[in-house]
Amino acid sequence: MKHFAIVPGDGIGPEVVKVGTDCMEALCEISSFDFDGELFNIGGQRYLETGELLTDQDISDLKKKDAIYFGAIGDPRIKPGILEGGILLKMRAVFDQYINLRPVTSWFPYVPLKREVPFDIHFLRENTEDFYMGLGAKLRKDNGYRAEIGVKRESYDMGFDIKAEPSEDDEYSIEVGLLSRKGVTRFADYAFKYAQARGEDKVTLVDKANVITNNYGMQREIFQQKADEYGMKLDFMFVDAMSMAMIVRPETFGTVAVPNLFGDILTDLGAQLQGGLGMGGSGNINPHGLSMFEPIHGSAPDIAGQGKANPIAAVLAAEMLLDNQGFPEEGRMLHAAVRHCLDTMQVTPDLGGKLRTEEVGKAMVDFILNQ
Amino acid sequence: MKHFAIVPGDGIGPEVVKVGTDCMEALCEISSFDFDGELFNIGGQRYLETGELLTDQDISDLKKKDAIYFGAIGDPRIKPGILEGGILLKMRAVFDQYINLRPVTSWFPYVPLKREVPFDIHFLRENTEDFYMGLGAKLRKDNGYRAEIGVKRESYDMGFDIKAEPSEDDEYSIEVGLLSRKGVTRFADYAFKYAQARGEDKVTLVDKANVITNNYGMQREIFQQKADEYGMKLDFMFVDAMSMAMIVRPETFGTVAVPNLFGDILTDLGAQLQGGLGMGGSGNINPHGLSMFEPIHGSAPDIAGQGKANPIAAVLAAEMLLDNQGFPEEGRMLHAAVRHCLDTMQVTPDLGGKLRTEEVGKAMVDFILNQ
Ligand SMILES: CC(C)[C@H](C(=O)O)[C@@H](O)C(=O)O
Ligand SMILES: CC(C)[C@H](C(=O)O)[C@@H](O)C(=O)O
Repeated sequence: MKHFAIVPGDGIGPEVVKVGTDCMEALCEISSFDFDGELFNIGGQRYLETGELLTDQDISDLKKKDAIYFGAIGDPRIKPGILEGGILLKMRAVFDQYINLRPVTSWFPYVPLKREVPFDIHFLRENTEDFYMGLGAKLRKDNGYRAEIGVKRESYDMGFDIKAEPSEDDEYSIEVGLLSRKGVTRFADYAFKYAQARGEDKVTLVDKANVITNNYGMQREIFQQKADEYGMKLDFMFVDAMSMAMIVRPETFGTVAVPNLFGDILTDLGAQLQGGLGMGGSGNINPHGLSMFEPIHGSAPDIAGQGKANPIAAVLAAEMLLDNQGFPEEGRMLHAAVRHCLDTMQVTPDLGGKLRTEEVGKAMVDFILNQ
Repeated sequence: MKHFAIVPGDGIGPEVVKVGTDCMEALCEISSFDFDGELFNIGGQRYLETGELLTDQDISDLKKKDAIYFGAIGDPRIKPGILEGGILLKMRAVFDQYINLRPVTSWFPYVPLKREVPFDIHFLRENTEDFYMGLGAKLRKDNGYRAEIGVKRESYDMGFDIKAEPSEDDEYSIEVGLLSRKGVTRFADYAFKYAQARGEDKVTLVDKANVITNNYGMQREIFQQKADEYGMKLDFMFVDAMSMAMIVRPETFGTVAVPNLFGDILTDLGAQLQGGLGMGGSGNINPHGLSMFEPIHGSAPDIAGQGKANPIAAVLAAEMLLDNQGFPEEGRMLHAAVRHCLDTMQVTPDLGGKLRTEEVGKAMVDFILNQ
């Protein structure tokens, strides 16, 4: 019996998570897989009521679980950054989920960019470092153009003492991106292992080493060492070139390793190539600890509660969860259920269908129970 | 008589710049426009021979010109970052070309992503700040996990004293992104003026203010003030969402302001939407000083010297140059020449045509002379 934390969150989160959990419950009836799900009330609504984001209590409760199944957070009444930094990014950091797995698969022909050649890119986004550390400062007259900032992680403490001398009044804002050799090494190691397990002989590393030379120069060097260690190939792509290549030759990519910020952009672009955000599942993976699975879409408050949300991304996230928890066959059944709904056009309006969220869910559950 | 610096650079740079200058020479014969072009030998080849990138002598010679017409730099024999930082980014910084104008126009039907609705996005990329300052450091055992770095610009001096305390051996690499209130203010001002001049009532600002909260929070605030000042609308888009929106609804965007790094990515993506890098012209603009015009593509060493390079991007850059120098009608003739070549399929293989670079050039020159 697996114990999952279910965090529906805000907006369409609860609707799509419901479909995912219904599907997992259906699996329990026809397979040896079994789970219980404990609901966690974490998100914008609670924040507005109590001021709480991800509390210490949440963290210790979540730690008792085998995995987290997450909907979405986001509330238009709350300033950008608060929920993201205080809940989602904090979760990724606290549980050290350093791999963000985001497959981009052609579910042809349901894509805006029709291509005859099927593609199946597996993005591995580094999920704990880069420009996502929340490490920034403002320098202005009223603080004497000085700032002291720092970041504390399990294995280090880093401090910045910053001072500006302007020739006239101004204000400066800075934001620091950081990579550690350890962080990049474990990321690279995961990437080559992953590609190997998929029977590939190569990893593509995306960066902008011609401009952000320090961080991405070190990253290239570490990836090259790992490539040699594994006896595998390594391709470098600049992020700008990659955004183009994804459009004209997505079928030429397999396992793609990408640092945090660029991963955010490219995997959304990728989602669009496979039919929109409603098609993208995502796993925030700590290979030795607690992982979290979520659709890559947000809370979409504009369509919340209207039955318009496409639950496929959440179901694909559940597939990844099952795979991660040692139930790959059950995962494949969810994949087949998605395939079935697409083939029979039992889908939501974003994919050209006429069904409501829960109707798609019902079609999937029926499909699973009939296996 | 205008005086232009011509910097052909490396790879396909010379081939495409030749087409652009031939077209401008043709314009001289049929209009009041007149120019002389002085060739500058700057690029990878000279660097390999002399170790020189952009020298003080280059800078003072370039300063005497009315504008710079630039090809491309880049050489596979040189480590990523050296030519970029030492020539291209240095030029943008030294001449304070703080606006990078990159139109993304549908030249329907020559696009991989066919859309019935024409689009015409005008990206204004901030071109001197953000994560493009080359401000980074390494902290490791052999430097005692300490680094002192700094940046000096005309109006300020900024220093960083950084110290890490690791609990075990490691290595850290950091890279700093910086925005100044002055820098963002002049950028915002340009954007609203630009949109207004195009008869639009709105600017779209792209950022990632939900994660990089300091820099892009300040940027939002400044853009909002400018929007109020101009009595115009301001839309915010997260960069990940923008990469998707550009694919499904490019026609809904007009003037789009984007910080440096995201601008790099989105304008390449945009180039792809209009038929590839061979279609993208780019202006590095100092509204009160020396501007530089270049195709957005690089030196493409793999096809250099083979007559395969699409010269359209370079011709569109020349159009922007003429516009900037007070010859908008002559600029429009170059635009018409491009249109003519596309309509008659007198184009290079990347667009499905059969012509060589110089043949496309000849077709354009003939078209211009027959006006
Ligand atoms: C909500 C946001 C902080 C998040 C991110 O940028 O990582 C999201 O876009 C994602 O990709 O999961
Ligand atoms: C060559 C590189 C430094 C440059 C950039 O990143 O700005 C290029 O990609 C561009 O967009 O002009």
